Amino acid sequence: MTLPDTPLQIFLPKGFSFSSTAAGIKASGRADLALVTCSARTKAAAVFTRNRVMAAPVQVGRASLNRTRGSLRALVVNSGNANCATGVAGIAACQQVCREVAKRLGITAAEVFPSSTGIIGVPLPAEKIVARLAELVSQQAATEQAACQFAQTIMTTDTRPKLASVRFRSRGGEVRLLGVAKGSGMIHPQLATMLVYVFTDVTAPPTQLKRHLVRTCEETFNCISIDGDTSTNDTVLLLASGQSGIRVDHCAKAFNAALIEVCQSLARQIVRDGEGVQHVICLCIERAKTREEAKQVARAIAHSALVKTAWAGADPNWGRILAAIGYSGAPVNPARINIFIGRQQVCRQGSAAHFDEKEAHSHLAQPECDIRVQLGRGRSGAHFYTTDLSEEYVRINADYST
Amino acid sequence: MTLPDTPLQIFLPKGFSFSSTAAGIKASGRADLALVTCSARTKAAAVFTRNRVMAAPVQVGRASLNRTRGSLRALVVNSGNANCATGVAGIAACQQVCREVAKRLGITAAEVFPSSTGIIGVPLPAEKIVARLAELVSQQAATEQAACQFAQTIMTTDTRPKLASVRFRSRGGEVRLLGVAKGSGMIHPQLATMLVYVFTDVTAPPTQLKRHLVRTCEETFNCISIDGDTSTNDTVLLLASGQSGIRVDHCAKAFNAALIEVCQSLARQIVRDGEGVQHVICLCIERAKTREEAKQVARAIAHSALVKTAWAGADPNWGRILAAIGYSGAPVNPARINIFIGRQQVCRQGSAAHFDEKEAHSHLAQPECDIRVQLGRGRSGAHFYTTDLSEEYVRINADYST
Repeated sequence: MTLPDTPLQIFLPKGFSFSSTAAGIKASGRADLALVTCSARTKAAAVFTRNRVMAAPVQVGRASLNRTRGSLRALVVNSGNANCATGVAGIAACQQVCREVAKRLGITAAEVFPSSTGIIGVPLPAEKIVARLAELVSQQAATEQAACQFAQTIMTTDTRPKLASVRFRSRGGEVRLLGVAKGSGMIHPQLATMLVYVFTDVTAPPTQLKRHLVRTCEETFNCISIDGDTSTNDTVLLLASGQSGIRVDHCAKAFNAALIEVCQSLARQIVRDGEGVQHVICLCIERAKTREEAKQVARAIAHSALVKTAWAGADPNWGRILAAIGYSGAPVNPARINIFIGRQQVCRQGSAAHFDEKEAHSHLAQPECDIRVQLGRGRSGAHFYTTDLSEEYVRINADYST
Repeated sequence: MTLPDTPLQIFLPKGFSFSSTAAGIKASGRADLALVTCSARTKAAAVFTRNRVMAAPVQVGRASLNRTRGSLRALVVNSGNANCATGVAGIAACQQVCREVAKRLGITAAEVFPSSTGIIGVPLPAEKIVARLAELVSQQAATEQAACQFAQTIMTTDTRPKLASVRFRSRGGEVRLLGVAKGSGMIHPQLATMLVYVFTDVTAPPTQLKRHLVRTCEETFNCISIDGDTSTNDTVLLLASGQSGIRVDHCAKAFNAALIEVCQSLARQIVRDGEGVQHVICLCIERAKTREEAKQVARAIAHSALVKTAWAGADPNWGRILAAIGYSGAPVNPARINIFIGRQQVCRQGSAAHFDEKEAHSHLAQPECDIRVQLGRGRSGAHFYTTDLSEEYVRINADYST
């Protein structure tokens, strides 16, 4: 397994313009506010966190998409403040920002989709945001550079911006996709969140966008885990401007493949940029009864503190993996379980296999490693990307707000 | 909250004798094999791990208790090897040990209850155990010292032996309970396990013992968590010799209180001796709809890597606690949630409360601290004991088998 690098080439979909600025929300003075405008008739679909503690922008954005039935004209994102656990005042602040954006663009407030990421429990400084909107509107640019700045602006503890882009030809035209993400823990140190935006110029009604998006998230973002914590602000938004003139139902298969490619790349970039990560682990679960069962087993392994700390030490400790499979809730028979580290089998039918410990240790000492589990229950499987749990992770997270 | 120290006084129940030796299973040469014999008509009940990967002694012990309908005459425990993931050979080795013990004591093999704790996936050296049985039989002693040696012998990465003892008077007589436990992670670095034995001289049929034991485990051992990993060898065994002549149904309330006291003390000793633990946290969940709901919320908080690492830094980061409550699966309304650190309220109705951060930090910097959560859903609650996740925990667990 090799994880692709951030693609150098960006294929900017038609119909989207970007601008960014430093509004003083981040104490560091770095860029922390971005505006994206979309051409008329842009449609959108979104997937949100399942956490019952939902940040204000998640609540507002979801309601707006419902009200406009998936029509969307602008996106306003701030980093440095999650606007979460901020009560009624947080909702009001978020709505105020959307209204002010709408006023300056001549659209309705419901056509403005808001996102926030950063510290939890601190009031959103809406006035700082409003003060920079005129500037953001005047500086809108449909350029690769502006899109890259957008990716920089939404970062919090991320160490690098995350972009992925794909294009494909269909019926004499070209469809482009550009994905931008932030996140380096499923939830951050008092920060929150994975935010993902995928821009495309395909033509599609929101229902079709939603179908493509849900399926893709299951395959990509729902198959990664850094620390097992679900954020309060997670949002994946798919925006289609229709400017390519190509309808999604005329290129459904190619579009789906392109969307998966973009989201897979972003998902892996998020895992690789995880807090304190030394090793990225590709967990391959095979011979499960269903794909859901394979993911259930993968999640148990990926969330085990004992397994993750063993990985931090490149320790080929298959007993901990076997124990995690045993308490995953999947009705496994231990006597049918095989475990492989790299190319070597380390556990055969639930018992120790003869293997070269040094070689297994060397494999796990790499930045990216493969662990394969066979459950002996069926023909389904899943790939899952996760990380070790290092002393560095504890250091980062033990000392944040104080 | 103050956790009681290991009680200095042991009230040895009548009807039990102990002996220990070093059989060479542990590489260190420390004591690793113990035998306990019980007077005729001793009855027992047990609760086992719910992990589907079950060690051989758990499978054998459970079957034996079923076969004898709860009659038991001896207990053979080794540390240094879990006899788990050892396949059919592991079962045969365990049965051989039980047979050999039975032969020397003139009882049946099913009356011998086996336990193992230690490394997973390594064949049990049954011959080393069998070679020391004659010695163990000849050295049986019904003394406090022999009971303390038993507690020492079953240790693995534990830093101290764990005992708790209580007596109460009933109908002119006295009932005694002695609990002995090992464990310093719900599962260990390739080691496994919490083992708990409670010896008493009350008279009781196995069905009544089982009822008392299940209820007590729910209140005590099922309310603690160090790393969220469920072991493959967990066993809690309650043995009643009947030698006090007092029937349990004549002192049910006092017996239940005494059993809870013993198990609560052992549970807290296990948490305090957790790997790399700097802070023990007493989580008090209030105003839940049901006790089960309170425990569900407590488990989510206690298993969150982000919450546990914040505790390692004595960081009063209530946003992470709120987020964990949100994904616990309990249908909470965030706007009704209150959170307290020590005596201070830090979150009021889902939003930040004004509080003195320094004082909250000082409270969390203590070896034992209190966090209270009110869900605003009902009148039930639960206490749950857990720990921080320290760099030391990662160090211990990142470097074990290699």
